[in-house]
Amino acid sequence: MEGNTNTNKEIGVEWRINMGDGTSRVLEAESRFGLQRFVSKVGGFFQRAWRLGVNEPKKSIHCVKVGLALSLVSLFYYMRPLCEGVGGNAMWAVMTVVVVFEYTVGATLCKCVNRATGTFLAGALGVGVHWVASQSGERFEPIILQLSVFLLATAATFSRFIPLIKARFDYGAMIFILTFSLISVSGYRVEKLFEMAHHRLSTIAIGTSICIITTILFCPVWAGTELHNLIRNNMDKLSDSLDGCVADYFSTDSETSDKTLKGYKSALNSKATEESLANFARWELAHGKFNFGHPWLEYVKVGASLRSCAYCIEALNGSMNSDAKVPDALKQHFGNFCVRLSNKSSAVMRELAVVMSSMKKPTRIDFMVEEMRNAVQELENALKSLSKQPILPAEAVTLVEVVPLVTVSSLLIEIAARTEKLAGAVKGAAEKAEFEVETAEEAKTGQSSKGGN
Amino acid sequence: MEGNTNTNKEIGVEWRINMGDGTSRVLEAESRFGLQRFVSKVGGFFQRAWRLGVNEPKKSIHCVKVGLALSLVSLFYYMRPLCEGVGGNAMWAVMTVVVVFEYTVGATLCKCVNRATGTFLAGALGVGVHWVASQSGERFEPIILQLSVFLLATAATFSRFIPLIKARFDYGAMIFILTFSLISVSGYRVEKLFEMAHHRLSTIAIGTSICIITTILFCPVWAGTELHNLIRNNMDKLSDSLDGCVADYFSTDSETSDKTLKGYKSALNSKATEESLANFARWELAHGKFNFGHPWLEYVKVGASLRSCAYCIEALNGSMNSDAKVPDALKQHFGNFCVRLSNKSSAVMRELAVVMSSMKKPTRIDFMVEEMRNAVQELENALKSLSKQPILPAEAVTLVEVVPLVTVSSLLIEIAARTEKLAGAVKGAAEKAEFEVETAEEAKTGQSSKGGN
Repeated sequence: MEGNTNTNKEIGVEWRINMGDGTSRVLEAESRFGLQRFVSKVGGFFQRAWRLGVNEPKKSIHCVKVGLALSLVSLFYYMRPLCEGVGGNAMWAVMTVVVVFEYTVGATLCKCVNRATGTFLAGALGVGVHWVASQSGERFEPIILQLSVFLLATAATFSRFIPLIKARFDYGAMIFILTFSLISVSGYRVEKLFEMAHHRLSTIAIGTSICIITTILFCPVWAGTELHNLIRNNMDKLSDSLDGCVADYFSTDSETSDKTLKGYKSALNSKATEESLANFARWELAHGKFNFGHPWLEYVKVGASLRSCAYCIEALNGSMNSDAKVPDALKQHFGNFCVRLSNKSSAVMRELAVVMSSMKKPTRIDFMVEEMRNAVQELENALKSLSKQPILPAEAVTLVEVVPLVTVSSLLIEIAARTEKLAGAVKGAAEKAEFEVETAEEAKTGQSSKGGN
Repeated sequence: MEGNTNTNKEIGVEWRINMGDGTSRVLEAESRFGLQRFVSKVGGFFQRAWRLGVNEPKKSIHCVKVGLALSLVSLFYYMRPLCEGVGGNAMWAVMTVVVVFEYTVGATLCKCVNRATGTFLAGALGVGVHWVASQSGERFEPIILQLSVFLLATAATFSRFIPLIKARFDYGAMIFILTFSLISVSGYRVEKLFEMAHHRLSTIAIGTSICIITTILFCPVWAGTELHNLIRNNMDKLSDSLDGCVADYFSTDSETSDKTLKGYKSALNSKATEESLANFARWELAHGKFNFGHPWLEYVKVGASLRSCAYCIEALNGSMNSDAKVPDALKQHFGNFCVRLSNKSSAVMRELAVVMSSMKKPTRIDFMVEEMRNAVQELENALKSLSKQPILPAEAVTLVEVVPLVTVSSLLIEIAARTEKLAGAVKGAAEKAEFEVETAEEAKTGQSSKGGN
């Protein structure tokens, strides 16, 4: 209450009402303030939503696509004469579209296949169990049906905990339970069930075809392309934030934006996304530069390698924020080697990003890794000869003064080692995915653009 | 082919068939070998599945619960006379159970509320739009219906991208689209729609009640408890792997198992799980030690703090694997301080885990953090006085020899700093969640068990 009154005073309005017991109370202010806050909150919500839509047009397009697919399927059912064979089961087609339509093509395909397979298997099994039950007399029929629902639901639910099935057939297992239970509960005779199964399958076929057509024909979002871009962007962000944080530490006039500095965080948290995208990408047809059967799991390995670099950069960031003082001369002298090494490491990462995005065989990587190794060697030499440097009178340098520098240096050396592993992972991916060989012309432009960096 | 033949030779069998063109071909061996491999693969699969079930009894119980809930709902429909009012819509109840029943109570409640709200809102809106359409003549009716489906599906799909809605109402938005489209496609008159809506809502009520009763009454798995345990286990694992890796590095006879050493990885990858559990926990009723409205978001903060420690431990692990040689005398001398500091840090983590699990106000933490700070100070002093140590002739120590030690030391100091932040986060959680004050007796037993560590 006090807080509210204060705020009202600041705004400069205060409405009071006299109470029966002689005191007066602030009237409406609270609710008006509440309303104001509500309006501004709702306004802010819509503003953010608008920005989301504008900044990620792909997502907005996806929404339109969902609307389109649903309109198509309902249009299909308005033209009654066309679908006499589907009967009153129209809703299964609508349901299929709503449930199956996902953001990426791969996820949609995965759900379509799961839905069709799950329904088919459960339907066949359900009809079989129904037949057995109907043959065993009226007394045993409900018992057999109940027992089969219980057992199959338990088993299918359990299968959803098994990693392999969870990753690829989770939805199928759910649809299996659903269809099987529906058949058992329905209480229809077997002949009627066949008719129903036929309807269900044909409506699901209509629904899934509309989904697949819409998702592939209108601005498709391929899980493979998304994964590809995610990995490439993370590499770029990592190299920028490595460069930025080393530059900020060693030079006084460098001021990297916080967004660039914290770029590595994006790689830290993308494990789950990478894995699910790779899983969906396996279902996708050939698209763009990717064939069916592109080795997407290699991308997950590259992502893991990248994350291990990111962990180190995180630690580097932390140790750079410590407030231990380092003598300026020393810092400047060491800065040269550290900045050089971080530049080499980030150059390797950037080149790896180029390799990933252009899908050309890495040709310059070995050379650049060699350069990075040289920079590591130079930094190690600098550490070795520290006490013999002419610029620093030996007695002036105590160990405690160089602790932050030594830490930064050895973290940079560790980052270089991990970058080398990352290069290995990218090479592995390039081999398995059979990246093309770069033409001489491309190599030239690549080199000149590298020079521009 | 070659590989297969080799393997067959190893096994010692080879069946050949003469082809028409004079060559001979290995027969059946491939398929028999394939069958063997298939059998052993399937066997391995079931073995792993069995182990999963035995090691995580909670998951097995969940499967039985799903079977039970489905049996209950189908039993409900076998007793026809009971549910005359629900008509042929029995399948909606079955469907609700299959789709809504989740592993944790919170997730189930969340889905139940989402399903009911989504259906209700879409139903009301659908009937309204239907009425408007039916009033505007036969020519405009389909246009209005189509347009409304398109617009609402687009808007609702967009809302699923907004983080707040995605986290809490994703399923509700989907059900909204589904119900609204079904109503529009149905082509029923408004009176018939009311009847249908009534049936839908009552079947959903039956389905959700069965789910909620089953999930809460039989061995409930609370998302809150799971989150609580996850955080506590991660703390324990982190402290074990910190202790283990420092001990392994400095002492020759210590041999920590790889599983303990890599325990920190569990904290690295649990961000998504923590966030989703916290989201579900908000829906849960009071259970065990937790009230409704327990500050679960604080647990997410503690988890984030824990993860920042884990990043540093990861870097520490990496830098310990470097093969740079350190003089033994130096290593032994430094080892004392480093092991001491890591013990103090891990003790703080362990105590924090005890605080989290017992939900008592932290009383010893300040003292232990103070001890940890002292250990940091001692390690820093050791670094300062390194070149003055009597055990080490000053001229013998070159900087490059101490680089690994300096790195390990400063990473340990950084880990101590992050542990202190973690302690702050736990204290914040303890305050918001109003942990109880420890009784004198409990404090005593706590201390003695601590002494036993």
